[in-house]
Amino acid sequence: MYRLYEFSPSGNAYKVRLLLTQLEIPFDKVELDILKGETRTPEFLAKNPNGRIPVLEIQPDLFLFESNAILFYLSEGTQYFPSERLERAQVMQWLFFEQYSHEPNIATSRFWISWLGKADEYQDLLQKKRELGYAALEVMEKHLSDRAFFVGERYTIADISLFAYTHVAHEGGLT
Amino acid sequence: MYRLYEFSPSGNAYKVRLLLTQLEIPFDKVELDILKGETRTPEFLAKNPNGRIPVLEIQPDLFLFESNAILFYLSEGTQYFPSERLERAQVMQWLFFEQYSHEPNIATSRFWISWLGKADEYQDLLQKKRELGYAALEVMEKHLSDRAFFVGERYTIADISLFAYTHVAHEGGLT
Repeated sequence: MYRLYEFSPSGNAYKVRLLLTQLEIPFDKVELDILKGETRTPEFLAKNPNGRIPVLEIQPDLFLFESNAILFYLSEGTQYFPSERLERAQVMQWLFFEQYSHEPNIATSRFWISWLGKADEYQDLLQKKRELGYAALEVMEKHLSDRAFFVGERYTIADISLFAYTHVAHEGGLT
Repeated sequence: MYRLYEFSPSGNAYKVRLLLTQLEIPFDKVELDILKGETRTPEFLAKNPNGRIPVLEIQPDLFLFESNAILFYLSEGTQYFPSERLERAQVMQWLFFEQYSHEPNIATSRFWISWLGKADEYQDLLQKKRELGYAALEVMEKHLSDRAFFVGERYTIADISLFAYTHVAHEGGLT
């Protein structure tokens, strides 16, 4: 059975739980508190040398990290990942957009404000992240102005990935 | 013929040129000066609503953005992208690592120091980015300590992607 190492409030972990649930794949969960450094222990670094959750243990001692790579692994060959070449690449385009332009702004703002409680300390950086976060949301709004899903005409892991932190953006001050 | 919209000093553009060249695929190049805002014009935003290079024009008026998504598009079905399920996801794992933990630190430091000439102005942020950049390089060093390539036993787009900014890391002060 798959085992998911996660910090459950993380949107990156949420993505993986959502897909596993929609695929009706049973899995075990191991909760790690990133606020207590539990992802920086030698034991965890042996699973992901980059010290981040989520990590999927595919079989004993075989680990995959990076949330969107895990989505790709689980979805290839299912209805949630296209079979057509261009659409496959377009899903990837939105997954990389998510990790580069969306998550570092929206998720990090949420973490600083709602988890660390350091809105004042990070005020200047938060202002910049809020601008970039709104810019990312605007790119999404524009793209979705005449379609229901990010790629093709159906729900894929691009929608799952971008939904994860968008639906809690208000916890990062993006309302 | 493919047309690549790029800012040639960009490592993200370099990746795509390298793969196209190694695949012996001819392509046109359109140079845009990001320092002059040429990727934020209405004309360019119609190609990539996120206003970033590289963008690959696959056929007239059909555009793909995000460098690593372009690598995926061009390499699927070639020797540079694995056919085995786990290895495919492992390539993706390293591509997402590159865009989340490597590029934002190493490429941004290089841009601020060597292109904007603002090492003093960004001193504090650069210090943090240098730490995170070295941490990313250490993850790579550790992974490559007993193997020649990031995934499997052959050269893939994971190697291309991570080589792009690593080989110019010194221009960002990571020596």
